[in-house]
Amino acid sequence: MNHPRIIRPAEHANYTPNKMGKATIFESARLLVGLNAFEPGQEHALHKHAGQDKVYHVIEGEGLFLLDGRELAMHEGDLLIAPEGIAHGVRNTGTRRLLVLAILAPAPHQ
Amino acid sequence: MNHPRIIRPAEHANYTPNKMGKATIFESARLLVGLNAFEPGQEHALHKHAGQDKVYHVIEGEGLFLLDGRELAMHEGDLLIAPEGIAHGVRNTGTRRLLVLAILAPAPHQ
Repeated sequence: MNHPRIIRPAEHANYTPNKMGKATIFESARLLVGLNAFEPGQEHALHKHAGQDKVYHVIEGEGLFLLDGRELAMHEGDLLIAPEGIAHGVRNTGTRRLLVLAILAPAPHQ
Repeated sequence: MNHPRIIRPAEHANYTPNKMGKATIFESARLLVGLNAFEPGQEHALHKHAGQDKVYHVIEGEGLFLLDGRELAMHEGDLLIAPEGIAHGVRNTGTRRLLVLAILAPAPHQ
């Protein structure tokens, strides 16, 4: 990755029929930039990360951010940050595909 | 930041008349999520970060990503990643405001 280029996130989406699809745009020890792709009805259940902060940015579609005891409606362009230890998830409650940029710092251990 | 909420990045933009304006959305030791706001003609000159990876995501407007010896046209929704040591910058060559999400991992030392 020594020659940065323009990335159109939607071109890297990986939708899969049975569960949320993942794709990796960039990864280093410091940072993981990925995509979470949800067909209608798919979700990423509530979970948390120890020692990692997460940024969600909604690329297209709509649904819900899942939080501990709360659900927040998400729309294109919305950002949500889950600092380490804060439970979070995503559910596609819409009728079309939902694509969310998911950034983790630092990256998960391999 | 123990209670995540929906963030609409454009609502946090800080435009200033004489140079690029900055705003911080989130900061921890691991991660800085900020906004770089450019009036027409403003730029953030070519620079690099030692030991930090940077993600740019264009929220609104258009302009150029500046790279070492190259310039890449940027449009709303475009992403560009500058790994540590890779020179990068932004110039607003358009006729309207340009807002770019800028994520650094880890965050700069205070």
